[in-house]
Amino acid sequence: MTRYFSTEAIMDLDSFYRRNLINCLSGYKSLNLIGTKNEKGVTNVAPFSQVFHIGAAPPLLGILFRPHTVKRDTLENILASKCFTLNHVTPSFYQKAHWTAANWEGSEFEGTGLMEEYKKGFDAPYVQGSPVQLGCTLVETQTLKVNQTVLLIGSIDHVYVEEKGLRKDGSLDLNVLDTVTVTGLDEYHIGEKLGRLTFPKPQEKPVEF
Amino acid sequence: MTRYFSTEAIMDLDSFYRRNLINCLSGYKSLNLIGTKNEKGVTNVAPFSQVFHIGAAPPLLGILFRPHTVKRDTLENILASKCFTLNHVTPSFYQKAHWTAANWEGSEFEGTGLMEEYKKGFDAPYVQGSPVQLGCTLVETQTLKVNQTVLLIGSIDHVYVEEKGLRKDGSLDLNVLDTVTVTGLDEYHIGEKLGRLTFPKPQEKPVEF
Repeated sequence: MTRYFSTEAIMDLDSFYRRNLINCLSGYKSLNLIGTKNEKGVTNVAPFSQVFHIGAAPPLLGILFRPHTVKRDTLENILASKCFTLNHVTPSFYQKAHWTAANWEGSEFEGTGLMEEYKKGFDAPYVQGSPVQLGCTLVETQTLKVNQTVLLIGSIDHVYVEEKGLRKDGSLDLNVLDTVTVTGLDEYHIGEKLGRLTFPKPQEKPVEF
Repeated sequence: MTRYFSTEAIMDLDSFYRRNLINCLSGYKSLNLIGTKNEKGVTNVAPFSQVFHIGAAPPLLGILFRPHTVKRDTLENILASKCFTLNHVTPSFYQKAHWTAANWEGSEFEGTGLMEEYKKGFDAPYVQGSPVQLGCTLVETQTLKVNQTVLLIGSIDHVYVEEKGLRKDGSLDLNVLDTVTVTGLDEYHIGEKLGRLTFPKPQEKPVEF
């Protein structure tokens, strides 16, 4: 059985129901903790599911900040300090990662018990124990006319990866690294591999390798 | 053991290794087949891992098109026809979904054996058998200064969801719907739920519900 929603039906939905539904439509989302520091030296860490690949050479990534539904501390800290970290989340601390989204008075590290880690003189805090940690610098921001969403572009300056998950061809085995993925606003999963497929060519069905 | 890459080390990597590595850094990605039709009526279907939530009211989503690494047929078709579909992928057709990325002469539906489906007079083809199908209309595009990546915004006009995965609060159970997620360029996974967590508040550790 299939359930159908028109735009009109969606706009008539209870706002809580609508937010849950629409946030699930794109599918599984990446989950990263973003670590920053404000001008007074207070650290911040918050979960983001809207981080994506922009380019490999130079290595760039994008983050979407929605103005009304997400705390803005992270964005303000990045605009002021120009730097931030991205950190994959594992099952051992996904509840703390979720908890960082609460409206804490001071640092979310202190509140939740996640530990800060500093490396190579980089000013923003990494999350200790994360299997993939990226040190990034602000490149530019653009505001979307349609609803004032902010797209932030960052360069990837430092990459730390647990070796157990780094394959010979440069790809990461996120099953081995225990990286967590998120759906909707509050549901967390690990991945279970179906297969890795050969480069797609016409007349030659891709197979696992 | 942790492996470290500086920007300089990343730029010195073999381009194939670098592309694999950088494409894996953001974590698990959403996977959607985008269905379109060109001005001559030839259909197109292609896999995209860069679809994300922009807003719930009105329901909007964004898609990133990278100029040099991705076929542009989908973007050109959307710019001309103003409409497209998004379709979740399941394990039963993830190999065909991957195969649609090959450089086919005619329609990828014909080439791979995926079936077109038409509903409610909407001009773009849905993928038959997909558990989440969205009919979308072009709202606007923006080109990123940094590397000419195109960000396309679409409104979600029609939502079809298999009822077995639609919860009472509007959220989708993507484990039940069998939605597939992708990492890097060629690796596919299903999700295995860790837990759904209560709304985060200070002084009250989130718990499963």
